[in-house]
Amino acid sequence: MTEQRGFASDNNAGVHPDVLAALARANVGHVSGYGHDPYTERVQATFRAQFGPHASAYLVFNGSGANVLCMRAACRRFEAAICAPTAHVNVDECGAPEAIAGVKLLIAEASNGKLAPEAVERLIVRVGDEHAVQPRLVTISQATELGTVYSLDELRALVELAHSRRMVVHVDGARLANAAASLGVSLRALTTDVGIDLVSFGGTKNGLLGAEAVVVLNSELGSGLDFLRKQTLQLASKMRYLAVQFEALLGEGLWLRLASHANAMAAKLAEAVRDLSGLEITQPVQANAVFAVLPAQATAALQERFRFYVWDEHTGEVRWMCSWDTTEEDVEAFVAAVRAALADC
Amino acid sequence: MTEQRGFASDNNAGVHPDVLAALARANVGHVSGYGHDPYTERVQATFRAQFGPHASAYLVFNGSGANVLCMRAACRRFEAAICAPTAHVNVDECGAPEAIAGVKLLIAEASNGKLAPEAVERLIVRVGDEHAVQPRLVTISQATELGTVYSLDELRALVELAHSRRMVVHVDGARLANAAASLGVSLRALTTDVGIDLVSFGGTKNGLLGAEAVVVLNSELGSGLDFLRKQTLQLASKMRYLAVQFEALLGEGLWLRLASHANAMAAKLAEAVRDLSGLEITQPVQANAVFAVLPAQATAALQERFRFYVWDEHTGEVRWMCSWDTTEEDVEAFVAAVRAALADC
Amino acid sequence: MTEQRGFASDNNAGVHPDVLAALARANVGHVSGYGHDPYTERVQATFRAQFGPHASAYLVFNGSGANVLCMRAACRRFEAAICAPTAHVNVDECGAPEAIAGVKLLIAEASNGKLAPEAVERLIVRVGDEHAVQPRLVTISQATELGTVYSLDELRALVELAHSRRMVVHVDGARLANAAASLGVSLRALTTDVGIDLVSFGGTKNGLLGAEAVVVLNSELGSGLDFLRKQTLQLASKMRYLAVQFEALLGEGLWLRLASHANAMAAKLAEAVRDLSGLEITQPVQANAVFAVLPAQATAALQERFRFYVWDEHTGEVRWMCSWDTTEEDVEAFVAAVRAALADC
Amino acid sequence: MTEQRGFASDNNAGVHPDVLAALARANVGHVSGYGHDPYTERVQATFRAQFGPHASAYLVFNGSGANVLCMRAACRRFEAAICAPTAHVNVDECGAPEAIAGVKLLIAEASNGKLAPEAVERLIVRVGDEHAVQPRLVTISQATELGTVYSLDELRALVELAHSRRMVVHVDGARLANAAASLGVSLRALTTDVGIDLVSFGGTKNGLLGAEAVVVLNSELGSGLDFLRKQTLQLASKMRYLAVQFEALLGEGLWLRLASHANAMAAKLAEAVRDLSGLEITQPVQANAVFAVLPAQATAALQERFRFYVWDEHTGEVRWMCSWDTTEEDVEAFVAAVRAALADC
Repeated sequence: MTEQRGFASDNNAGVHPDVLAALARANVGHVSGYGHDPYTERVQATFRAQFGPHASAYLVFNGSGANVLCMRAACRRFEAAICAPTAHVNVDECGAPEAIAGVKLLIAEASNGKLAPEAVERLIVRVGDEHAVQPRLVTISQATELGTVYSLDELRALVELAHSRRMVVHVDGARLANAAASLGVSLRALTTDVGIDLVSFGGTKNGLLGAEAVVVLNSELGSGLDFLRKQTLQLASKMRYLAVQFEALLGEGLWLRLASHANAMAAKLAEAVRDLSGLEITQPVQANAVFAVLPAQATAALQERFRFYVWDEHTGEVRWMCSWDTTEEDVEAFVAAVRAALADC
Repeated sequence: MTEQRGFASDNNAGVHPDVLAALARANVGHVSGYGHDPYTERVQATFRAQFGPHASAYLVFNGSGANVLCMRAACRRFEAAICAPTAHVNVDECGAPEAIAGVKLLIAEASNGKLAPEAVERLIVRVGDEHAVQPRLVTISQATELGTVYSLDELRALVELAHSRRMVVHVDGARLANAAASLGVSLRALTTDVGIDLVSFGGTKNGLLGAEAVVVLNSELGSGLDFLRKQTLQLASKMRYLAVQFEALLGEGLWLRLASHANAMAAKLAEAVRDLSGLEITQPVQANAVFAVLPAQATAALQERFRFYVWDEHTGEVRWMCSWDTTEEDVEAFVAAVRAALADC
Repeated sequence: MTEQRGFASDNNAGVHPDVLAALARANVGHVSGYGHDPYTERVQATFRAQFGPHASAYLVFNGSGANVLCMRAACRRFEAAICAPTAHVNVDECGAPEAIAGVKLLIAEASNGKLAPEAVERLIVRVGDEHAVQPRLVTISQATELGTVYSLDELRALVELAHSRRMVVHVDGARLANAAASLGVSLRALTTDVGIDLVSFGGTKNGLLGAEAVVVLNSELGSGLDFLRKQTLQLASKMRYLAVQFEALLGEGLWLRLASHANAMAAKLAEAVRDLSGLEITQPVQANAVFAVLPAQATAALQERFRFYVWDEHTGEVRWMCSWDTTEEDVEAFVAAVRAALADC
Repeated sequence: MTEQRGFASDNNAGVHPDVLAALARANVGHVSGYGHDPYTERVQATFRAQFGPHASAYLVFNGSGANVLCMRAACRRFEAAICAPTAHVNVDECGAPEAIAGVKLLIAEASNGKLAPEAVERLIVRVGDEHAVQPRLVTISQATELGTVYSLDELRALVELAHSRRMVVHVDGARLANAAASLGVSLRALTTDVGIDLVSFGGTKNGLLGAEAVVVLNSELGSGLDFLRKQTLQLASKMRYLAVQFEALLGEGLWLRLASHANAMAAKLAEAVRDLSGLEITQPVQANAVFAVLPAQATAALQERFRFYVWDEHTGEVRWMCSWDTTEEDVEAFVAAVRAALADC
């Protein structure tokens, strides 16, 4: 089929060859199902190497599964999660947090997709009032859905607030690798070391075939997680094939190379179009996405040749997402097309 | 790691090489996520070729996901599902039908893992009584968890009863291929043509890496299924890799060859041990499982060399499951070990 | 105990004597439980007289029960409800809409507690997009939690929008009587005649001991409601005692007299304090509540003598709620106290 | 309407006059809603006097509400409850345990409606196996739905088993008063002193208008119960009217007089018919119910004059339930009718 690469989403890209190779290598003989196999055991050490010696990883199928599982693990039935309006859990999971986890989301004001402690604190109200859900979880996306990245200081401030109020912090890290690459820090520095409690660590958008991990950093939250993963429909039968994907990704630094590359392509794209007349970049470009506003006519012309999403129908804001497999040539071709489209307006 | 093949479960086997090859072939360029890609479109035709022109398939991650999704699609909030005591939904999904679908299971008496219409009918009571859940779904496993297979006549009788009571029939077909192979009929003859409404069609136990499909045969039950699949955490991001697994399995008859082989290995095993003194086969061997009772000492000796499960601690009944990759030599070696273990008792 | 009447909430008032008398009159002999009794049958005619010949009423215990039951009746598992930020379902039901009904609330901007069609329409997006919950229900409070009342035109506009988008409209009518009294219209004119689909009709805040009713005006939404009421834990065992409460309230116009009186007391209070220096009335006084801002010192002094709530800790806004049993003397005593408290500032 | 008293259910009876009087006495002035009132505070002491100094009571609307609330308090999302086939939670709550609490029920074999430790223990399996729900709660009905009563020794044996397996025991005590009366023991002796953890204590069937209580005896299970009660739609607005019902019932021994009377009427009825030819009493008569089998023709003739339920359509077993207001004359008239109906067969 098509070999064209677009800018629609980093999940439009395929699987990195190293990952496919790892699948093939693991395809030998019989091993026990459901994660009771040597591959899955081995990948735990890989996760500990990345997130610290107390981390434990529960592999799951997809990001929504990871997020909902984290909510079910962290929240009692009357406890709520605070998130940004743009959070994937709020707008892109078809109500699974509410319908599957039974968790109410409290929507805090955000700036560039990020929560500030003040905005979170405004929602930590009516504690002890039985008529109100009780805030328990702050869930943030890192990198955010708008391509921005929380700094370590920003993370520490959120964690400090949460912990001071007996709350815990979850990171929807579908693009955590991109955030780490952006900040130039390790996954551990970005999570464990700033006090994050729970992570949905994404692999699919960063070159895997399909695997995500719930990484438990606060071991109190791990109680019952085995059962919850199974009940939440996220326990893989042939788990070894999830495990080796992560081994390929995390073992030799592939995660960082791929994420850094995607980020670099977004930066290159942003730089090339930033000063074009008629186009405005609308979000800081800190990970692998570029958000911009340009004339609707130019957008339409571009979409005839390249796939990407209009993010906001009202403002005409578009999202251009770079992937692990986006090439410099892809970017250059796209930039040329942007120039041409703008010139025709 | 190990190349030994045991008899613990058909999910201990790996992935058929044709399936891995299909994954590699699909690993080209960008396609849209979440099933809006040409591979997923194409596989719909493949499913229609197998299940009839009105079938539609919703690919999901695992069997529990398929089953729970079917329940959520078929049952209103106050409707119940009738199943056998041994049903996977009853004993092996950690309460997901209840906790995730909110559906009460009504447990009918079963014989060799199969429901008879009389047993189902005894539970269709209190219709219209607001104090009682209302039976809506009959869910059967085909092949059953005990390795037995419903005949076409048995299926027709269940469907006739259900439809006459405004109920619908779901097949948990984690091993539907084995049942079709056993009966020598097509998938369509086994489902659509006898009036089945919904199928969880399994692939993982029959040589896939990890993919199952909800196949909707009664189109009224398809309403909203897109949304329900997403909300039930079963929508794959890089769907093409699920689609091509099924294409490899269904397109050229691989499903039938693999299932027939697994069945044949179970038959061979059963024949070889059936007359051994001290061993009793406890279930009709109609698919790829052999259930037997033998002395605990023999079981223990066998388990030192081969992996398999004791199915019932009280009776000592064991389950020996053959896979698509079980070889004649595997069976012969195992039979020899059984003989030796029994001889030592 | 205390006989003092305060301004904290209309649920602090007791039961109207006519209602107690009705309970006593019904306390004769045996009748069937769960609503299969002549009292409950009879009250259906009473509801039809008030809401129109196609209305049917399902009596329940409390307002949260009524609201959640309406959501469960109106919404499929992936459908959402649009409401105001101040809606009782959003802030005062401890997450029951999410945890019990599994329904996500989409929070629209509101003015004085009321939704305008434009604000609702902004949330009717991504229809058909499986990643997003699908808007199904607009739920409004009438009178609102801020003591304001939707006009008939405002209601018609919301209904028109909703129905044009295949959505339905629910009224949380915990204080519907106050709204009807305020507008000088019948309950039918306020609901059925403007196209409302479902009502939670409140009785408890208007003189009952404890009874609310889900009134179904769009009969399509009544399917399965018997079962849902039972499952939602809202089916009364000795239903006759709920039925006769509503008979007493609705049969002879008591509902209107009590609500009109409560409204009149709020109007009297508002008029008496409106021009006081240092006090500002913050919401239109259209039902039985007065919202005002006054100095914290004055509030504190007042609260030593009268019970009422500070509605907003940040702004110092207070809520003064009048009840069916608030007397002119109560209001006058309170006004005098307000004057004194303000004078002391 | 009718003053006839039948034998259909103890909820067909009305409200005891002392309870109505208590409602009237409490109908004075304003008190805070939702249980923050002096009546509700006072009734806590009443409950402690009955159940011991560490008991705390959460008043709710109905028995299903109490039971579901107990399950939500006791069980984590993957934990299950063991009950008898005849349990109200299993057959008469329209699937609320599953749909509202998300709790799977494991159905143990029972004898005369009662669970024995052996039957419970057979279901405490697969502990630690993530594929299986984890047994957490044993829930029994006392008196049972079949009119039988657990002895103190039987209760102790169940508690001992449960606690030894880290499980807890809940009593559905819709008719706990009848059980206490039957055994001649206090409520405390019947619950707290034998180690019961949680009780749904019924009032409605024993002369109240409508009130039940969740009584927490194991204080660990009280964590979050305030929130859970609200979210489970069981928090009464005008709580004082629930509180005073229980005060009337528990304060002066009314509960015991009423339950003893109902039991005595059942005993009288049983004695009078026990030796009649053509009639067989099918359950031990230990509380206020008589179960019997008699010819269908006799049942039909009786039902023309007296209301009661056929409990089992297949066997013709009927249930005759006596109430707090059943009179000796009622029983005598009924017995005469039974004699006549049998004579006509």
